[in-house]
Amino acid sequence: MAYYKDLREYIKALEENNHLVRITRKINKDTELMPLVRWQYRGLSEADRKAFLFENVTDAKGKKYDMPVLVAAYAGTKKIYALGLMCDPNEIMDKWTYARANPIEPKLVARGPVQEEIHMGDKLLEHGGLDEIPVPISDPGFDNAPYLSAPFWVSKDPETGVVNVGTYRAMLKSQTRLGILCLHPQHMRQQWQKCKEMGYSSLPAAVVLGATPNVAYCSVARLPFGVSEYGIAGGLAGAPVELVKCQTVDIEVPATAETVIEGEIPTDYLEREGPFGEHTGYTTGEYFSLYMNVKCITHRKNTIHAAFISQFPPSESSVLRGVAQDAAIYRLLRHDCNIPTVLDVHWHRESGSNQWCVIKMKKNNEAQPWQALYAASGYNPGIGKTIIVVDEDVDIYDPDSVIWAICYGVQPHRDTKVIPGKLPALDPSSAPMDKIMTEAAPGSALLINATRKWPYPSVALPAREFMERAKKIWEEEKLPKLTPKVPWHGYELGLWSEENREEAKLAVKGEHYQTGEKLTKNRLKV
Amino acid sequence: MAYYKDLREYIKALEENNHLVRITRKINKDTELMPLVRWQYRGLSEADRKAFLFENVTDAKGKKYDMPVLVAAYAGTKKIYALGLMCDPNEIMDKWTYARANPIEPKLVARGPVQEEIHMGDKLLEHGGLDEIPVPISDPGFDNAPYLSAPFWVSKDPETGVVNVGTYRAMLKSQTRLGILCLHPQHMRQQWQKCKEMGYSSLPAAVVLGATPNVAYCSVARLPFGVSEYGIAGGLAGAPVELVKCQTVDIEVPATAETVIEGEIPTDYLEREGPFGEHTGYTTGEYFSLYMNVKCITHRKNTIHAAFISQFPPSESSVLRGVAQDAAIYRLLRHDCNIPTVLDVHWHRESGSNQWCVIKMKKNNEAQPWQALYAASGYNPGIGKTIIVVDEDVDIYDPDSVIWAICYGVQPHRDTKVIPGKLPALDPSSAPMDKIMTEAAPGSALLINATRKWPYPSVALPAREFMERAKKIWEEEKLPKLTPKVPWHGYELGLWSEENREEAKLAVKGEHYQTGEKLTKNRLKV
Repeated sequence: MAYYKDLREYIKALEENNHLVRITRKINKDTELMPLVRWQYRGLSEADRKAFLFENVTDAKGKKYDMPVLVAAYAGTKKIYALGLMCDPNEIMDKWTYARANPIEPKLVARGPVQEEIHMGDKLLEHGGLDEIPVPISDPGFDNAPYLSAPFWVSKDPETGVVNVGTYRAMLKSQTRLGILCLHPQHMRQQWQKCKEMGYSSLPAAVVLGATPNVAYCSVARLPFGVSEYGIAGGLAGAPVELVKCQTVDIEVPATAETVIEGEIPTDYLEREGPFGEHTGYTTGEYFSLYMNVKCITHRKNTIHAAFISQFPPSESSVLRGVAQDAAIYRLLRHDCNIPTVLDVHWHRESGSNQWCVIKMKKNNEAQPWQALYAASGYNPGIGKTIIVVDEDVDIYDPDSVIWAICYGVQPHRDTKVIPGKLPALDPSSAPMDKIMTEAAPGSALLINATRKWPYPSVALPAREFMERAKKIWEEEKLPKLTPKVPWHGYELGLWSEENREEAKLAVKGEHYQTGEKLTKNRLKV
Repeated sequence: MAYYKDLREYIKALEENNHLVRITRKINKDTELMPLVRWQYRGLSEADRKAFLFENVTDAKGKKYDMPVLVAAYAGTKKIYALGLMCDPNEIMDKWTYARANPIEPKLVARGPVQEEIHMGDKLLEHGGLDEIPVPISDPGFDNAPYLSAPFWVSKDPETGVVNVGTYRAMLKSQTRLGILCLHPQHMRQQWQKCKEMGYSSLPAAVVLGATPNVAYCSVARLPFGVSEYGIAGGLAGAPVELVKCQTVDIEVPATAETVIEGEIPTDYLEREGPFGEHTGYTTGEYFSLYMNVKCITHRKNTIHAAFISQFPPSESSVLRGVAQDAAIYRLLRHDCNIPTVLDVHWHRESGSNQWCVIKMKKNNEAQPWQALYAASGYNPGIGKTIIVVDEDVDIYDPDSVIWAICYGVQPHRDTKVIPGKLPALDPSSAPMDKIMTEAAPGSALLINATRKWPYPSVALPAREFMERAKKIWEEEKLPKLTPKVPWHGYELGLWSEENREEAKLAVKGEHYQTGEKLTKNRLKV
């Protein structure tokens, strides 16, 4: 099946798969919209969460918008993310690995629906400029403006021409000006720095809104500098991303996107941006940062505004970042560092998918867990403050299971290591907020090898056959519906002898006194 | 209201409060009974778990028992535990603190229902000895016999006469012999050692089964050596525990208990006991351990056999140990170490309530988190491998919330410490199983100060009023029922200025361009 040609086709798929809630009542984008979607992340389990489409949107002043607003549609849940990739949730990892190895270069086309409407020059303000777009306030009561939460910034390296696509939050500062949180070492900031050093007065850029999911996923993923996000997006879709040239800047954008904002980012001044809630669960402070002067807005007829819900984890951004990072570390460990015993990787979503990473492994030597810990630490200095390796029978998606592994797999003096040299970007624990961006606060990470260091006897649960039989009785007795957690039956762990098996067999036949009798023969005189 | 006079009154209370499931179909105690109750710990959330009363019990050979079997009745859940103390779950901590400060000595009475039936001498085997009691196999397929999981062992210090009541698992080895896992430094083992050194050939002991909950809770709690469990049980009940003298040993037992097994523990020989599943989630190996020769069994008419469900966490034993340890550490920190800012303590049940402890604190200086960590470490060398202190807004019962606190409150090099000198008793990570009991494997603990080290701006969620308004819309739209997690709204964390408040107010009025305009006045030239 061909990949979604635009966001609209994808919305249809969301609806057909029961992943979409339509809200038709009037909703205030500044005070009601995001709090409503937020509740599903503070009050529902992942299985019950959905994408939301708001069809009747107003603002704080009562103005009615033509554009509907779509939230949590790219990655409201892992299942939604999988739908965005047209695969099963358990195939996401392989899909990413394949796309990284097999990028498909984008294709330039003459025209695309994203330019059905073009507002530039005098016409720009006639249509309201940025006010045309119903940008919601994410954390009303704290945020100082509506911010674009799902912008895909496209810009070019002034030296090499290499295109970067990245997601950097954008504050609405006027009808024609956006603030941008784009920090070192983020890629567009590196390009801006080069522009400045080469003497250009601005960096041209375009903000793409409402692209297909593959573009969204690549924009958010932390791909290496110089790797083309459009190419990987093509790899994910199995077909090239079709691009059109912008109207006022030398940049190409997806032809079927909903909206594009074109402009210039001056290199001579910075302007304060923030505070705004971040994926750490904390508001991040006020930084002098980049801003863009808007020159042109193009959009489709009947365009739809798409926003991520981010801030306090878990949220859509936890899934977006988490899924891509699961795949990145898995690929790094298994394919680049050659540890074939790595089975799965999971960044804990409920703390924002950045600082708690669990790696599942069926180690075949004692060096492997540490190799994985070191390699994962080396992936990116801004993430991975706690990294944990566990055995293959641990449910790495369940914190209870991981804590159990730590409790009985670890002696801290032997199996943990604190390492220096991390760079905690938006992490408020690294330094007081007024110093966090200016001082290179020392960051560190905690590595935990929670695998078992030698054979254990067995897991302390009834053997499988007895649990299966009991489940049948449970259901016959009409007791409440079970959602089994692993492990749900006992199993051997290498230190279980033939004699142990024999004694257990006697016991379930009621012949345990034979064992008792045997034991009298072998008493220890004290 | 007077405290429960016996287990039967308590069972009535369980039933009236919808905490009891009666199973009337025929159930095999060796293969079906424990697996059935186990399922609620592997497949239901705590709110849905119950106590189980099996009224029609058989064994592996088809023998039918008169005694029903009661499981998970003392501490199937924290609510059940609270019912056992006749209080609300949030009052348990204070109840324990009060009882420790105000013990009530037990009262000796002339006779009690526990001796309505007396089987001793020739009569003992006529009634089957231990076979009279339907002792379930906890982990069929692995356990080598039925084990008593809820025995309250009563014995006396041969030197001081001080009574100890403790729970030590007991293997059925013959109709008149029990194996006992009772290790150094457990109290009955210390008494046995003294007996041996004083030249006595045995330590007299009695196993109480089916006592009232207060006795059960004290038997399982790790009370200091020399503190009378009967006295604290009296303190918990607000009335003395009534005792009767045993028939064949100089020991007093609760007059209204269901069953008592009297006997002698030889001091000249040890006998192998185990393997048996433990609260670590692992089977513990085979140790040379104590055993008791049974001399007499007394019980009530229509007696009921009560068993704990333990083994893989969480289980009844996780709640039993956990609740008592929550209270013990809370009391230690707040009352003995004078840290009044300690607000709550929780031992993670899902890893067995022994090795992952979270302390909630509203610190008023930077020494307090470390004081709490050191003091909690010093409580008992066998427990507390990971101890974490968090701020007051963290949900210490929710691992997601604790991990979030670790992720953004901790720099490992600054806020964690590995300390030596722990004694990991049944912990299979300390040494290979064949050496675990003989070699003093070095144990250690990881201390984590996850409190915030300085003011942060705010929690990245919409302010309370907007979340409340959105909840109303959510409910009007008949979206799925919410179970709110904390935090569910944003709040300030000390670094939120009047200017921040002003800008946020402008934003929800749609006046954010005023802020944008202000920012142009204060650009940074670069």
